[in-house]
Formats: sequence, C-alpha cells, structure tokens
Amino acid sequence: MNAYVMLGVFQTTQKLRASLRRLSRAGLPPLDLQMQFLRRGRCPRSVALSRKVHVGADGSRSSPAAAPQRLPFSRVTVEDLAVFRKILPGRVITDPDLVQSSNEDWLKSVRGSSEVLLRPQTTQEVSQILSYCNSRNLAVNPQGGNTGLVGGSVPVYDEIILSTSFMKNILSFDNISGILTCQAGCVLENLVLYLEERDYIMPLDLGAKGSCQIGGNVATNAGGLRLLRYGSLHGTVLGLEVVLADGQVLDCLSTLRKDNTGYDLKQLFIGSEGTLGVITAVSILCPRKPKSINVVFLGCETFDQLLKTFQLCKGMLGEILSAFEFLDSECMRLLNTHLKLPNPISDCPFYIVIETSGSDSKHDSQKLHNFLEEAMTSLLVTDGTVATEDSKIKALWSMRERITEALTHDGFTYKYDISLPVERIYQLMTDMRQHLGNRARSVVGYGHVGDGNLHLNITSSARDPALLASIEPFVYEWTARFHGSISAEHGLGLKKRNYIYYSKSGPAVALMGNIKTLLDPKGILNPYKTLPDDLK
Amino acid sequence: MNAYVMLGVFQTTQKLRASLRRLSRAGLPPLDLQMQFLRRGRCPRSVALSRKVHVGADGSRSSPAAAPQRLPFSRVTVEDLAVFRKILPGRVITDPDLVQSSNEDWLKSVRGSSEVLLRPQTTQEVSQILSYCNSRNLAVNPQGGNTGLVGGSVPVYDEIILSTSFMKNILSFDNISGILTCQAGCVLENLVLYLEERDYIMPLDLGAKGSCQIGGNVATNAGGLRLLRYGSLHGTVLGLEVVLADGQVLDCLSTLRKDNTGYDLKQLFIGSEGTLGVITAVSILCPRKPKSINVVFLGCETFDQLLKTFQLCKGMLGEILSAFEFLDSECMRLLNTHLKLPNPISDCPFYIVIETSGSDSKHDSQKLHNFLEEAMTSLLVTDGTVATEDSKIKALWSMRERITEALTHDGFTYKYDISLPVERIYQLMTDMRQHLGNRARSVVGYGHVGDGNLHLNITSSARDPALLASIEPFVYEWTARFHGSISAEHGLGLKKRNYIYYSKSGPAVALMGNIKTLLDPKGILNPYKTLPDDLK
Repeated sequence: MNAYVMLGVFQTTQKLRASLRRLSRAGLPPLDLQMQFLRRGRCPRSVALSRKVHVGADGSRSSPAAAPQRLPFSRVTVEDLAVFRKILPGRVITDPDLVQSSNEDWLKSVRGSSEVLLRPQTTQEVSQILSYCNSRNLAVNPQGGNTGLVGGSVPVYDEIILSTSFMKNILSFDNISGILTCQAGCVLENLVLYLEERDYIMPLDLGAKGSCQIGGNVATNAGGLRLLRYGSLHGTVLGLEVVLADGQVLDCLSTLRKDNTGYDLKQLFIGSEGTLGVITAVSILCPRKPKSINVVFLGCETFDQLLKTFQLCKGMLGEILSAFEFLDSECMRLLNTHLKLPNPISDCPFYIVIETSGSDSKHDSQKLHNFLEEAMTSLLVTDGTVATEDSKIKALWSMRERITEALTHDGFTYKYDISLPVERIYQLMTDMRQHLGNRARSVVGYGHVGDGNLHLNITSSARDPALLASIEPFVYEWTARFHGSISAEHGLGLKKRNYIYYSKSGPAVALMGNIKTLLDPKGILNPYKTLPDDLK
Repeated sequence: MNAYVMLGVFQTTQKLRASLRRLSRAGLPPLDLQMQFLRRGRCPRSVALSRKVHVGADGSRSSPAAAPQRLPFSRVTVEDLAVFRKILPGRVITDPDLVQSSNEDWLKSVRGSSEVLLRPQTTQEVSQILSYCNSRNLAVNPQGGNTGLVGGSVPVYDEIILSTSFMKNILSFDNISGILTCQAGCVLENLVLYLEERDYIMPLDLGAKGSCQIGGNVATNAGGLRLLRYGSLHGTVLGLEVVLADGQVLDCLSTLRKDNTGYDLKQLFIGSEGTLGVITAVSILCPRKPKSINVVFLGCETFDQLLKTFQLCKGMLGEILSAFEFLDSECMRLLNTHLKLPNPISDCPFYIVIETSGSDSKHDSQKLHNFLEEAMTSLLVTDGTVATEDSKIKALWSMRERITEALTHDGFTYKYDISLPVERIYQLMTDMRQHLGNRARSVVGYGHVGDGNLHLNITSSARDPALLASIEPFVYEWTARFHGSISAEHGLGLKKRNYIYYSKSGPAVALMGNIKTLLDPKGILNPYKTLPDDLK
C-alpha cells in the first residue's frame, strides 16, 4: 500500500497541497499508484433511450435530417432470396423479429424496413453478394456493431442489411511490430482482450467497445478516448481489404508501416461510412500496453484556466499524457440529479479528467506530482483528486462517461458533436446559452479538449420544433464561422448528410460525389447517407 | 558536469557494465545527460554524386525505369510565355542556365529539358497557371525542394516547371493545439526553427531538411527519422489546400484534429507525387519539443538479437523511444574506409542507433540505464556507448546518416528502399549476398528497423548491366513474396513507376488510374510519374 492509497480522495486545494508537501517531506515516491488498467467499456445498448424518430432526427419531414424519397432500386424477390441462400446457406435471415434489431439504431432514433439480413463469413461471400446485388440494382446497407449516432448503420427503406458480425477471425498478429490483422466483424473489446494477453493495446478506445466492430470503427473513422495519444485511424490503420460495389475485391491489406507505391487507396474508405465499399479486413498498428495508468480529476474557475492547465499538462506530462477531457458544471448537475453521482471535489464551473499512461509507474507519478504542484502554485486549478484504486479510477471516469446516460433522464436531447480551434470550444457554449435564454431545460458541454472536440447537448421536456429552430442553423453557422467541423467524430450518416456544406466547400463535396460515382456507379452502397441529397 | 560526461565513450561490455554498477553504487542519477537537441540536417545538395543517367535509372532504354515516349502535349509558345508573364510578373524564368538546376535531380541521375520555370507566390497564381495550362494542354512538373530519389521532381521532357519555392509564408500557428499552417514552399528546416522558438517540433525529420519543402514532403508522403514516434503524414497532416489540374482550388485546409464530414479528400494527395494536384498549403499537427534527448550506439552478434533488443526497447523505453535504426558491418567498413570514421565500439556484425526523447531528463536516463542493464544481462548486446555531449551525439548519428555518402565513394550504387515484416528485413540481405556471390563489390544494409524499412545498396566498380540483371527482378520478386513494399518511403516517381505491380494488385492500380483520370483528365500534372506506362 502506498502513500496515496492511504490518503484516498481529497477534496480541497489545501488538502491537495498538504498531501503533496507531506509526500515531499517523507521522501516517498509520490503517486506511486498501483498498475491497473481502466475498464471503461459499457455496451451502449444497455443505455435505454426513449426517443424514436422515424423520419428525421427532429421528427419533421421538412428537416434536412429527414430521409429523402426512396430511390428506384429493385425490390428483393423470391429468386433473389434463393440466390442469397445458395451463397450463404443458413445465414439469410428473413424472420421479421430477427431482422428488427438490425433495422433500428441503438439510440432508437431511426428505423428502416429491411426484410433481409445477410451474414457472410468470408470476403468471397461478400464479393458474391455485392456482385449479384449490383447486377440486380439492389441497395445494400453494410452494418457492423450498429452503434453509430447519426443513422448511418441502419437501412432507411428496404435496403438489404449486410452484417459483418460473422466475420470475426483474427488473421495474424506480429508481436515484434505490434501489427494486428483481422476480419472486419471483430468486436473491439475482443481485440482488446486478445491483445492484452500479448502485452499490447488497441490504438482506439470507445464507450461502445463491447458492441462496435473494427470494420465499423474504420468505416466511420471512430475517434474516442485515445486519439489524443495515438492519433487517428488514418495513421494507425495500415491496410484494408474492401469489396467494391460490383463485387471486386480490393486488396490493400498491407501489414507494413511504410509503403509509398502509388496512391494510398485505403484512406478513401476510412470514414466513408460504407458508401464506397464494404470493409472486410483491417490491419492496424497497436501500441505496447502501458505499465502504469493514473487518473486525476481537477476543478477550474474559468475555461481560460482550463486551457492553460492543458498547455501546462502537455509540457509537464508530455509523452505520458493519454487523455484530457472536460465537463462543465451543468454536466455535474445532471450527474448528481439523475444518476446520484456525487461530485468527488468541491463545486467548480469546470472539471477536467486527465489520464496518464506510461512505462514506469514511479516516473509517471513523479511527473504527475510535479504537474499538480505547478498547477496549484499557478492557481490554475482550485481543487482536485487523484484516483489510486481501480474502483476510484472507474468512479472518476464515470463522471465523464455517464453524461450521455444522465442526459437521457433530463428530457428530449438535441446532440451536437463539434470540433473547433481549442480556444473557441467553450465560447460556443456561452453564446448558445445566451442565444437560447430560458427556452431549453439544460445546455451542457463536455468532450475531448485535447482534440478540440465539444459535445454540446441541449435538453427540453419534449420534442420542441421551436427550440430546434433556435438551435439550428445557429449552431452550424457559428461552427462554420470559426472553421469548425459540424461532425467531429460521429460522421454524417443519414441525419447530418445535408449539413456537410457548413464544413466542406462546394468543390470538395462535388469531388466526393464524383468519387462515389466512380466507385459505386449505381449507388447501391448505403444510399441516403454521408453525401447531401443535392448530389443524387 | 555529470557522471556520464566524465566517463565519455566506453568500448566494451565490461566497461559498460562497470559504469552502470559504479553509477548505481554512487546513487547518482545515471545518464543525466545535458538537454541538447540534435542537429542532423545536412543539405543533400552538398553530397556530390557522380552518376548521371539521362534515360533510365540503369542507363538502358529498355529498362522499366526508362522514360516512355513523350506524350502529345502542346509545346510552350511565345504567346504562352506572355500569358505567364502577365500572371507572374518577373517570375517567369527562361534563361537556360537558371532553368538547368531545376531540370536535374539532386542525385544527378535524371535530367529533363524544360525551358520554362514558373515561380508563383500565391494559390491564386497557381490556379491561374494551371487553368491556362490545362486549357492549352501544356504539361506541368510541380517542384518543391527537388530532393527526391526516384526522378519524380524534375521534368522528363519539356514539362513546365512549377516551383513552390516562392510560397514560403507561415500562415498561422496555434500554440495551444500545436497546429501549424503554412504555404507549401516552406523549407522544412525553417519550420523547425520557427517552431523551436515556440517550444514545438515538426513531426517529421529528414536528412534533406535544409532543402526539402513541406509541400513536397506531403506530396511524397516523406517518412524519415521520426515516423516511429509520431507516425506518418497521413495522421499528422490535418489539412491541405490543393489546386487541381483545371485550376480549381480545393480547400481542405482544416486546422482541426477531428473532422468526419464526408470523405477525407486530402488523403488522396498525400503521397500522390504531384500527379493529382498541386499542394499549395498545409496544416500539420506538431508535437511539443522534448526536453531531453539521448543517443546510444550498440553492437549485436546476430540480427535475431537485434530484433530482441528492439522488443525489449519498446517495452522498457516505451513512450520515450524516438528512433531505432540499424546498420550492418558492411556499412561500418565503408564508413571506415571511405570517410575515415572510426567505429565507436568494438567490431560487431550489427549496430543499433537508439534515440530517446522525453519530457524529464532524469526519468529518461533512468529508463535508458535500466534498459541497457537488461540488454547486457540478457546478452542481447555485446558492446555499446552512450553519447552525452552534443559533438558525440552528432558523431554517433553520423554513423547512420553518412552511409549514403560513403556509398558514393564505393562505386556505382544500385539503391533499393524496401519495407518488409520486420523479422524478414535482414533475410533479404543474406539471400541477396548468396544470390550475387562475388559479382558485387559491396552489398550493404541499413535502415529504420522500427518501421520495417531496409535500405539495401549494392555497389560495383561501374554501371554493370549483368549485375543489374542479377539484382532485378530478384529483389522485387523476393519483396513481393513476403508482401513487402518495393518503395517504403522514396515513392515511385519516374524510376520505379513500372514496378508498382510487385506491391499493388491489378485492381488497385486500375483504380489509381481511374482516380488520376477523374482529377486530371488530360494528364497534364507530372506526366510519366507514379503510375505505370500500361495505364497511359
């Protein structure tokens, strides 16, 4: 048992400062925390949400989020089903009860009416299916773990659901280079467990890891909690195998860190939400498992102090900093009210969750100690606590991770996933609150400060078209004015496809349309998604 | 002065072990090195090379590296020059002496016959030039620092040279997020100096940094010495501004870490060698400047021990490891013979250069100390030295960096830049030596172990078609058999375009051709480069 375990959670600046002094006098290695790894994965399906939207995110047919008219694809016939059954014996699902869960997204916000769910196991089977569907002009909805937030993973009408759930083999792992190759349907958490035994980790981590699949992660360019440290999938994905709309297999499944032979085609499919091809296998560079993880929860008086703390943190924690997240006092109020989670420190306008991951627990603890002392001396931080035991680490992380859940108890929620130059991210919150006055129940902000990514959520007692009209296009125009992105990590899917012009220029969107036409001339792959209706 | 400065360079395992013991007994912080940053930049132009190849890399018209027939582009007329002079007053160069250096690559291995060099300063000027050239069917060779190794940066025939050298403004730098935005013509070293004052570094570092430009770095997806730590440009480049072949400006100059609004178009241009568009501005994520840098030079008996040392190193140095490079005894022989560089340790079959970069010099030194002790105890390493003073750090790095120069003194050099699964990289060397017998003068191997990247060089007294026929296609077939890349970081350019099929499938190359046609229907941008002749 070390010094900090005995100290437990402390509540005030004075206590924090006193603890640091005591450790310093005792000559003890400060913050010599137990080596313990976070378990943050909760299946998003377990979060029950009540809202249900059949047409658009806001329930209005006139909204840009609403589905467009059905395109003139063929309808599935008895003959088609016979062909599918020959390709996938025993893996063509038509029982409506079984197809139902794949028709609806996990937020239960959009629902399609597909009558066919296909479960291939091999790339060859995916190829045969797409080749046939393309020739028959049948639309296809590729689906991974169905954990997306923008209606991209479920059919809009009667698109055939092509699930990768049965493609869950790990193909290879090189324990010298840390390069993992696997089929697209591997669940992220299973990969995490597989790698943990081999002293490696996945370079991405999401709340949805218990359900989401690596193919879907790549198709949506998932961000998550480790992006600050390990970068985006555009850097860590080394290779992809993709089946194109006409059934052609595009083998870019390189397992090399470097390959400059021609255009890097795989990049096109990262973040294309299944509209350009179906990812069937992925190779990805995995970092070594950190030997030491620490978590700190701090309070700040102003957002400017929070940003200064971030700068200090980057300098003093340097290479061991693995997460820098924030929440505001409104988030804390909802956590207290709806989930009965107590504030682990005294009330502050802003809270920070910092995680460090390193290879030497003593060094990490010393760096953290030095940083905390400097943050307090500079009066950047007014209160704080350091978690030492696994349960306390989890408790601190839950303050950040359970905000979504708390919001579902607060009423109908309008959700925005904005990225901005980091010094702007809270200005949007302030301006939005002023703009809305008392029309909203709660206006809360949290997110990944390190990535300049704000999750802005606005609740009201029920769906409220007048409130929505106040929020949009205000939020998008504000974001565009500061050259932000109206979807930092959630993608566009069905719900946000028509808002693309707030973040991308006309020529860029037109080029996207040309690339779509080049790769999928009939438009059978995940129609009504990602690209705006005016390109169709 | 600390303990290691007093010890200086030590030569044997016994000495290394004794030093570590002495430090341990003294309770001194071991390897508490001075905070000093490496200066590794040497302008590649200063390396004088004698070979000159006017047709193909091997001097033969029948080689796949030789230039194809000139395509039917228009020839520059007096009227064209008048238009250019109106767009770029005083910046249209037609004096043959001045155009000459832009016609020839720095290796002096390929030479074009362009008569016009254009020097735009703004994106708008680039746009006007390309719009005009496209309408007139005039071919254009975009050129950055002209430091490429595969003949991609100079004209093949009379293509107009469009230089970005006058586009050297830094547009913005955000010192909270570390995001730099600048024009494409900024010389890498100038960006390094600019950032150093602001406590940041560039995420890439190359020997050519004194000449190469960031636009060219991005266009060729430059790798270099920091890739192991900071990843590839596909991850660190956040935004690009590109002028397309028809003069259209594609603004993807995002300064956001996260943006999932539609396809990530900028990725297409990273590594496309100027064949899809002219990069005019770049935004890039820059890491904080490390406070401490250490360099170690070690010797191993076998390549297997070297790989085990790499694994140990990844585990024990973890987040501070910033380079893991190797050279074989043949490299050492050439360094001794031609450059009179003495071996800093005793003779070994393999040598390793390890660099650490971290935020706390004491912690870094301790980690390095622990790693070295373990490497010796496990008998992985037979000899080693740690550099403490700036001059010694430079001396150790020069053992790795001056191999290219040593090779130029050894005779005519056939150069290969291969990436392979890391456990295979030296097997190619062994097989090649056995295959060639005594036909070559030297067969030497060095490179970036951490990235699985081998630089294989074979010398002979003069150009030797029989030797070349023994090397190729053997080297490419061997690489393809183990799913390697025949160009890890150098690109394809003119010289290697027809070898693309060794590393990419037919459908992948065909898709590249379709993308080229989509973006540059007349093929005016950097013709004869990157894509194989059979696509033309």
